[in-house]
Amino acid sequence: MTKLVSGFSKLTKSEKIDWLTHTYLNGDSKAKQTILQYWNSDDKLQSLHDDFIENTISNFYLPLGVAPNFSINEKIYAIPMVIEESSVVAAASKAAKFWEARGGFKTEVISTEKIGQVHFTYNGEFSELHGFFKRIKSQIIEDSKPITKNMDQRGGGIKDIVLVNKTKDLKNYYQLHATFETLDAMGANFINTCLEQFANTLKSNAHQLKNDLNIVMSILSNYVPNCLVKASVSCKVSELTDQETDANEFAEKFVQAVNIAKIEPYRAVTHNKGIMNGIDAVVLATGNDFRAVEAGVHAYASKDGKYSSLTHAKIEADTFTFWIELPLALGTVGGLTKLHPLVKLALNILDNPSAKDLMQIAAVAGLAQNFAALRSLVTTGIQEGHMKMHLMNILNQFNASAEEKTLIVNQFKTETVTHSAVVNAIEKLRR
Amino acid sequence: MTKLVSGFSKLTKSEKIDWLTHTYLNGDSKAKQTILQYWNSDDKLQSLHDDFIENTISNFYLPLGVAPNFSINEKIYAIPMVIEESSVVAAASKAAKFWEARGGFKTEVISTEKIGQVHFTYNGEFSELHGFFKRIKSQIIEDSKPITKNMDQRGGGIKDIVLVNKTKDLKNYYQLHATFETLDAMGANFINTCLEQFANTLKSNAHQLKNDLNIVMSILSNYVPNCLVKASVSCKVSELTDQETDANEFAEKFVQAVNIAKIEPYRAVTHNKGIMNGIDAVVLATGNDFRAVEAGVHAYASKDGKYSSLTHAKIEADTFTFWIELPLALGTVGGLTKLHPLVKLALNILDNPSAKDLMQIAAVAGLAQNFAALRSLVTTGIQEGHMKMHLMNILNQFNASAEEKTLIVNQFKTETVTHSAVVNAIEKLRR
Repeated sequence: MTKLVSGFSKLTKSEKIDWLTHTYLNGDSKAKQTILQYWNSDDKLQSLHDDFIENTISNFYLPLGVAPNFSINEKIYAIPMVIEESSVVAAASKAAKFWEARGGFKTEVISTEKIGQVHFTYNGEFSELHGFFKRIKSQIIEDSKPITKNMDQRGGGIKDIVLVNKTKDLKNYYQLHATFETLDAMGANFINTCLEQFANTLKSNAHQLKNDLNIVMSILSNYVPNCLVKASVSCKVSELTDQETDANEFAEKFVQAVNIAKIEPYRAVTHNKGIMNGIDAVVLATGNDFRAVEAGVHAYASKDGKYSSLTHAKIEADTFTFWIELPLALGTVGGLTKLHPLVKLALNILDNPSAKDLMQIAAVAGLAQNFAALRSLVTTGIQEGHMKMHLMNILNQFNASAEEKTLIVNQFKTETVTHSAVVNAIEKLRR
Repeated sequence: MTKLVSGFSKLTKSEKIDWLTHTYLNGDSKAKQTILQYWNSDDKLQSLHDDFIENTISNFYLPLGVAPNFSINEKIYAIPMVIEESSVVAAASKAAKFWEARGGFKTEVISTEKIGQVHFTYNGEFSELHGFFKRIKSQIIEDSKPITKNMDQRGGGIKDIVLVNKTKDLKNYYQLHATFETLDAMGANFINTCLEQFANTLKSNAHQLKNDLNIVMSILSNYVPNCLVKASVSCKVSELTDQETDANEFAEKFVQAVNIAKIEPYRAVTHNKGIMNGIDAVVLATGNDFRAVEAGVHAYASKDGKYSSLTHAKIEADTFTFWIELPLALGTVGGLTKLHPLVKLALNILDNPSAKDLMQIAAVAGLAQNFAALRSLVTTGIQEGHMKMHLMNILNQFNASAEEKTLIVNQFKTETVTHSAVVNAIEKLRR
């Protein structure tokens, strides 16, 4: 039987599922049932979600959770988070509460510049190209007016366009490097549409040049080192104490752990991964594109030639300070924001933030996550908390009843959770 | 009214939702209805998903789609993808079909080594520490046997542990740098549990040393440059043609676009972001952790000191070759793989792959995505296809009826899709 198919996207959803189960799952009716049991009972709502992408067969569930008690610039937030990793929301909530009692999170948006480039080649003199660009620059901007009109009216639009000579890196290679202000939109569609228009104007005037100009491509950049947000927490070292830890020792070990992440890439990658646990959970809940955010953030972490930590910590005159500074290009209009009912809800819970507000909230979620991770790492170790959260997953894997769950959760309040210890406990209980 | 809350995690799900809607949404009953309409009607299934994380209030839907016709080492796959971005599955399917007709994708796993580190300080001589480590190394491994026993039996386990002197970078800083083979598990819990045991053995023998040894933290690394997979496609340049493009011109422009991503970080970040669109969609569908994958991949893209492209292209003797090589630490056992019914289904659709198989499938999804993106970029531009896919989202935003959708989709078969053009078309139709 051939597993190839023609015109698959034109089949109905049911036909797609039938083809798939028949071709790849031996016609298993249970598999089909699994796909169907995730459909929403409201046909119209289901059809909305089906239309998000091509060839949709079902809804993949990720848990939507809430981490309350986040004090950000004196305002208290409950942050909606979409994440499958068991310990993330718990860790965020814990860090939020800890810092709410110590002055809360302080944040500021440093810059909001977005970037796009028209990549092209020219096999002539740079000076000639430069003169040509100077002559047509205003026309490039003028030709884009139909696209930028609405954005201009709201105070955004094209900030500047410069010609960049890249011929030292690649033969005949030049760029139009354009900067944009896209306000509450992430701006990908706006920027790409502008750039393609820039390329059109460039191409249609190229006959003025002596040699050949060829457009290679026009595309926004997800590297946005001038779209920066900062979040920080600070308190007296003595206030860092809780029942179990000595404040001075904790503060020093914490700073040491951050400093290790600054100089050791193997550690920095996981350190920043933990930060992104918090940030991506907010990015997903608010309908933003986590691949764009991830790429921009990690490139920023490597900007000085060696991959390094996104957070920083210091102790100065008995004051402990811990902060993050990173690029986040987010939107609170456009894309899925008005389309996905749970994204709309998440934005409502956050008091309908501007893109700048959301940058700050996401940065806080990242900083909180990193604080919680480092606190565990330098005190009890990461596994204790992580496995406690994972306990329920293991119990569900064995179809534990409510009664079994209660008994085993109680038992592991005093015992170390490992996969095999939990399996043993279930087996013992069932004997 | 205070927005702070104590003991939130201990409230029932209903109590949490009531508190949230009361505190943040003015008690809006519609908001509560939105949260509830995403619950699954099967209580047991819903409870399973609730237990994944803390403070779950609902299920966030991401579309689960399927991209068929992927020929990978002569085997035909339909790849399940979880992604909200409208054009990704469509692009993957198109690239799959294109390459299926030209020999398909070829892949190989280059290496599968995982990494973890115990970070510690020692304020004495390195030579003494080195002697100490040599003496206790076998005991470190021996003490871990209860943890590694099962993995050892299956052919995995600890590969090696070395002492690394990092005092040039940070005062008194050393590492136990350990390498692991975790087979079909991603291995995070296994590695972290091992590392914490290594730290225990180190600490409990530290009295043999003249000076103080302090454990800072024990944690796996998501940077896995020796857990590498390669995927490639290749054909005669003349075979690259379709109705619209000249094969030679296309091949040259394509290679040029890849070369630009190699030398220009602003482009490389977005280039790799597009690759991750494909990879993350597979990572999510198979219950893996996309933050871990993202961090490791982007750090790898910056390993030579400048952020660069993950894909490569060349034309040699009339043959076009396009390939990707990147680190992917994935699992097909453990975590959510047996727990999330749709993850189980996705793995079934992929013929229950080993971790190595999944590395290859994910790499192919990334390469296919990059091929589709570059093909659009160097020919029609990215917006044409993207906005065509986005058209349905705009129509849904305006609650277009089935009839309106048909009329407008037909209209835009020949017109350029922009947000405002679609809005105008809807308004005209409704007048």
